[in-house]
Order: sequence, then structure tokens, then C-alpha cells
Amino acid sequence: MSKLRFRISMSLDGYVAGPNQSIKEPLGVGGERLHDWVVSLAEWRASHGKSGGETNTSSAVFAESYANLGATIMGRNMFGGHPGPWDAKSPWQGWWGKNPPFHHPVFVLTHHPREPLTLEGGTTFNFVTTGIEDALDQARKAAGAKDVALAGGAKVAQQYLAAGLVDEMEINLAPILLGGGERLFERVGDDLHGLELVRTVATPKVVHIKLERRKGS
Amino acid sequence: MSKLRFRISMSLDGYVAGPNQSIKEPLGVGGERLHDWVVSLAEWRASHGKSGGETNTSSAVFAESYANLGATIMGRNMFGGHPGPWDAKSPWQGWWGKNPPFHHPVFVLTHHPREPLTLEGGTTFNFVTTGIEDALDQARKAAGAKDVALAGGAKVAQQYLAAGLVDEMEINLAPILLGGGERLFERVGDDLHGLELVRTVATPKVVHIKLERRKGS
Repeated sequence: MSKLRFRISMSLDGYVAGPNQSIKEPLGVGGERLHDWVVSLAEWRASHGKSGGETNTSSAVFAESYANLGATIMGRNMFGGHPGPWDAKSPWQGWWGKNPPFHHPVFVLTHHPREPLTLEGGTTFNFVTTGIEDALDQARKAAGAKDVALAGGAKVAQQYLAAGLVDEMEINLAPILLGGGERLFERVGDDLHGLELVRTVATPKVVHIKLERRKGS
Repeated sequence: MSKLRFRISMSLDGYVAGPNQSIKEPLGVGGERLHDWVVSLAEWRASHGKSGGETNTSSAVFAESYANLGATIMGRNMFGGHPGPWDAKSPWQGWWGKNPPFHHPVFVLTHHPREPLTLEGGTTFNFVTTGIEDALDQARKAAGAKDVALAGGAKVAQQYLAAGLVDEMEINLAPILLGGGERLFERVGDDLHGLELVRTVATPKVVHIKLERRKGS
């Protein structure tokens, strides 16, 4: 069965977004510092149509995290737009323009039903109102032999972690403090549900900490 | 000038002690799991008069963290005993018995004056009521050419971190969740005061993350 894989950048004080998130600063004040390590990579820049950048030991980790993915799950807040029912006349189309970088089906958890939204490049946003387990079932069917990415945000990730549904987790630990904002590890209890440390890769900018579900658990 | 060095074991969710700390469970419920990596080391066992144990890549990190220390600073809660003024008849002597494992002067931050307490093996507990900076001055004088260890607990460490007085920090990140308790990175703001990631060492049980103050800052 395809794995549910979660990767996220987190500060030393545990935040995955800074304080005061807004449309202008979706990652909160100072939150972009979480991604300093990735936006400097040539591989990331190429995937976003930019030239330049560096190749270092984070490059292989970055490439691996995007390989073999057949579907993505995200929360409504990450998809974006105003909370509440969708605007019937011109519903929010996501942050990513006409050709989003997913190139596979995306399942958006929401309380508000909506028809699927097909954009260019193979990305279709499907809106799921039936909960995290059903979203995972649908995503797995769509992914086929490939894996499913859990994109976030924090609240959706917390639900999947607490339910023991995450098979692989990579924390990109940035050696910074944000001092406030949204923590990843809140409301998830004290059980990692068999996730064990399997690999650590470090550069001066980031420590990649990979956990996988123990075999048989 | 001698460095102020701080090392601590922390869970993936940021706790340095579990919930419901008590005399029976000074590290809180589940808190001993933070130290699974160290109590299995032959080097730690030898330093506590025990035989057996293993030698692995954590052994050198453990040895380094105890080398070249000439004084220790700790908070009143870590020293232990009931809060408030010292019992005049039989004041608390610390957790460590007649021959504590420090073997150098220890400076205990407290609001309650008390004469120094000299025990066996070179350990004298000095009680400092004049604040963290004065305690550091006294500890540096006592340490001479050696460094000063900041032993904790969390609240005292937070004060030194927020004041930018920590020169070196090693976080021993245990791949576990505690789900509650005392977090290290609270009330310290968003400034690491020049501390930068300089080294990462990993085993299946722990990720050692070392930060040092940038030269010139």
C-alpha cells in the first residue's frame, strides 16, 4: 500500500509558521526563515522556474522528498482563500497559479463541498468533506503504486499524526527561533505510533531528521 | 574568557521534562525516556559507578560535554528540596549524596541566602541570591581557565538564553514525544544571539545538535 509521507520545516523552538499569519505573510512573521535552506538549492529553484542556486547535501534529501508521489493531501487553510463557504461566482483557485507544481491529484480537506477544480499540468484539486481517513483512502486510490504526500498545514498534520496514519516523516530542523506562531507538535499526544529515527543529514543551514514506521507496526 | 556551556536532552516536541514533575519523578511522567541514549553508554555508567553499557558515536559527544569544566550553575529547583527558605535544622543537601559527581564549585541560584555547603570530592554548593549575571561572574572566577556548565533546569536556562549569555549549546534530541511538561524554548524570544549550528551527530537513539556563538558576536 502506498505510504503517507509528511515533510515539514520546523524551527528549533518547534514552530512550523511564525506569529501573525496573514494573506501577505502566509508563514507568519519571520516564517520564511524556515525555508532558507531550500530556496537556496539549485534543485528547488529549477522546480520553480528559476536559475542559479547551490547543490549540497540537502539536494538529495529535497529530490527524494518529491520523488514517487502520486497524490497530495492538504488542509483548507493551506489551499487558501477566505474561510467559510466557497465564493460561488469566483471561487479561490489556490496560491499556485494556472499550472500548480503538484502535477497529480490534490485532496483538500474542507467543511464546504465544491466540485473538483482541474488546472494545467495534471493538477486537479478535489474537495473532501468526509474527514481525514476518507481523504487518505481517496488519495491512495489516486496515487496507485506511488505514495501520498501530506502537505500540511499544522492542524491537518496534527490530526494524521495523532491518528497514527503517517508512515514517514521528515523534519527539516532550521537552527533558528521564531518565538511564537504555530507549533507542529501540539495536540498529538505522546505516541509516535512506531515512527523511528532512521536517518539524519546535516548542513550548516538545516538538520534533516527522517523517521519511518517500524516494520510490522 | 571561559565559555558558558549548556547541554540538555529534549524531546521532538520540545520538552526537557515530562508532565507532573514530583519528588518521585523529578523529570515528570515519561521524562526518563529523554535519557535513554545516555544511560546505556559505558562512559555514563562508569561515571556513576556502574559497569557494562555500550560505546557508540554518542560516547565522544558525552565525554566532550563533561571535559574542561571548572564550575557549574544550576537553579534552585534542580538542586531540589522544598521551595521557600532553607530548613534551618537540616537543610536539603542536594540529590547527589555525600560525593556529588561535579567535583568543582557549583553555584545555585536562589532567593534564599545560605552558607556554602562543602561535600566530598571537591564539590562545594554556593548559594547566589544576586541574579544570573553575578552567578556567572562568580562561576567564571571559580572556573579559571576552564569553562562553566549551565546545568538547568529549564527556567534558569531560559533566562541565560534570553540574555544572550550562552556561548555553546548542545541539544540531545530524543526521537520521542512527551506530549506535555516543560519546554526549553519558551520565553526566550526569537533571537539565538549568534548561536549557529556547528555540528550534528546522530545515532538511532538521539541526534546531537551543537550550536556555538559566531566569532565576534
